[in-house]
Amino acid sequence: MKLIVNGEEVDLPAVWWNSEQKMVQLIDQTKLPFQIAIHSCSTYHHTVNAIKSMKIRGAPSIGATAAYGLAQAINEFWDEPEYLTKVSSAYDQLLLSRPTAVDLKRGLDHVKKSWAVSPDEAIVQAQKFAHNISMQGKKIGEVGKSLIRENMNILTHCHTGALALVDHGSAIAPLIASWEDGVRFHVYVDETRPRMQGRLTSWELTQYGIDHTVICDSASGHLMSSGKVDLIILGADRVTKNGDIANKIGTHNLAVIANHYSIPFYSAFPDTTFDINTLTGTEITIEERNTQEIYEIRGLSKTTRTQISVSVYQENTHCYNPAFDVTPAELLSGYITPHGILSKEDLGRVYSN
Amino acid sequence: MKLIVNGEEVDLPAVWWNSEQKMVQLIDQTKLPFQIAIHSCSTYHHTVNAIKSMKIRGAPSIGATAAYGLAQAINEFWDEPEYLTKVSSAYDQLLLSRPTAVDLKRGLDHVKKSWAVSPDEAIVQAQKFAHNISMQGKKIGEVGKSLIRENMNILTHCHTGALALVDHGSAIAPLIASWEDGVRFHVYVDETRPRMQGRLTSWELTQYGIDHTVICDSASGHLMSSGKVDLIILGADRVTKNGDIANKIGTHNLAVIANHYSIPFYSAFPDTTFDINTLTGTEITIEERNTQEIYEIRGLSKTTRTQISVSVYQENTHCYNPAFDVTPAELLSGYITPHGILSKEDLGRVYSN
Repeated sequence: MKLIVNGEEVDLPAVWWNSEQKMVQLIDQTKLPFQIAIHSCSTYHHTVNAIKSMKIRGAPSIGATAAYGLAQAINEFWDEPEYLTKVSSAYDQLLLSRPTAVDLKRGLDHVKKSWAVSPDEAIVQAQKFAHNISMQGKKIGEVGKSLIRENMNILTHCHTGALALVDHGSAIAPLIASWEDGVRFHVYVDETRPRMQGRLTSWELTQYGIDHTVICDSASGHLMSSGKVDLIILGADRVTKNGDIANKIGTHNLAVIANHYSIPFYSAFPDTTFDINTLTGTEITIEERNTQEIYEIRGLSKTTRTQISVSVYQENTHCYNPAFDVTPAELLSGYITPHGILSKEDLGRVYSN
Repeated sequence: MKLIVNGEEVDLPAVWWNSEQKMVQLIDQTKLPFQIAIHSCSTYHHTVNAIKSMKIRGAPSIGATAAYGLAQAINEFWDEPEYLTKVSSAYDQLLLSRPTAVDLKRGLDHVKKSWAVSPDEAIVQAQKFAHNISMQGKKIGEVGKSLIRENMNILTHCHTGALALVDHGSAIAPLIASWEDGVRFHVYVDETRPRMQGRLTSWELTQYGIDHTVICDSASGHLMSSGKVDLIILGADRVTKNGDIANKIGTHNLAVIANHYSIPFYSAFPDTTFDINTLTGTEITIEERNTQEIYEIRGLSKTTRTQISVSVYQENTHCYNPAFDVTPAELLSGYITPHGILSKEDLGRVYSN
């Protein structure tokens, strides 16, 4: 992803292996959008902690970080006695570092195959795993940009950028690809309470100079009803066989309103998001997250300009914090995938092959 | 309104005249929901400043405070030379203290009629003006409670409580009236970004012990689609002749989704909100407010437990902050007014009399 660091442009993924210094490095997402900081993990144990403390976020990026972390452990322990015991322990610690089990496990298992081969091979496999994720984003960008035309107003929700998908992103990828082709448009970025991932989306769009405006989540109805939204593109956490999508809370609201005003509504996602074993969205249990995410808001102190958290509700206020909602397939115009823009009928066919 | 102060129950309006100490007193809304503080204004000038600094909020409550402020000025200057000049100046300062001109002017003009009569008469008229506002809320409560049944889940948006309407409130009034009748239900309170007026609604419901849960604005679609909302009641900033309502941003979103899922959707408001001279909502200009309301969030510091503001976006982030949206009459099930629950056809008839 393009980054502007001290006025200079650099190109970095969300996480990578620094082969000279032999360490995992990543963009510290806990500092964003206020500060761009590179976090270095010189041992696999540091990498476990980076995942635990949410310095890296987004299931695919976490998977890639875990893959690098295991390759790092293989390098650390290769010449030691009890190598296998130590590497197995590293595998377990990485697997338990966050509850996004599918991506984490996939990354670890990809590297595990080489733990009896060589330390270098482990690094190569981790890099390959991360590269494959980022290439999915690149393809999504190439596919999705066909929907974007000059002067459009496009609305997006949550954060679906390079930070989450190693590079390129999902829903953000078509925007970047189109902008780099010289098409000029405008993006409305939903704030996305409670965690305000719109801050990250705004930050990433800023790196590319993409014209955008942050809005509170509840302003979308006004914009759609007054003809100010031509297209909605957002991501997905999970897509079921029939085309229902589980995505960040608020997606359902946007889909119903877009449907009411006949505004095209697309979900963009990499292959790993499609879950052929779940038939419909009704089978999905909505994750209820800690209400601290609603209570506490992180920002910059006006006096010290350092990052602090404030409590925005009285203690004992009862809150409900569903992390995502399910949007039925009939409210979607289509799916932006690495295999093209698909209809819900296409999905099962393309992904059963 | 019922208030729990140091564990004891007291009954206070949002603003009142303390006849013993001859001062205007009000509940300081800038301290809420974290602290209940009574603010005393010993001169009309203090009352002007209380309005300016938003210690009192909500157009009807501001109108009542201005009425008290003018009565206070009449008392201050009655025996002085240049009485009329001084009282005229007080009128002007109160009128300019906030841009909610209609309610402010109505309150001032009501008291102005007595500025040549007597200081006591001015106070009586200010009290009468404030009482009339609060009685509208009481009637709305009596009317609206017929919609509420045992075990219902009711969703509300923004703050429409006693603090804004001197006493009793508008959309909140049916909830209180029904709860005091012994009906037991549950309320979902929208956070209502950017200004988080849901904090005040939650605080007021807490005073009455009404069971409620705060949600982020974008969680409403999930709740409605999963059958967890039986009724929506919210307020209105302005109702046009055909029944369109301008109300806090996000109202339109709720109306479209409620319509999609056939959930009853009502707006509650006092008489002064109905604007017979505006034919439809398309004639209403949407007020765009300072984006600082999005950037800056007030809360309690986790370390000092004092109220501070944090910046939640990078400087120069472009935001758009429409204060309200317009919901077309066809998306409303009805209107809860002091004259009964009306249909859009009823509105013009009742209010043209």
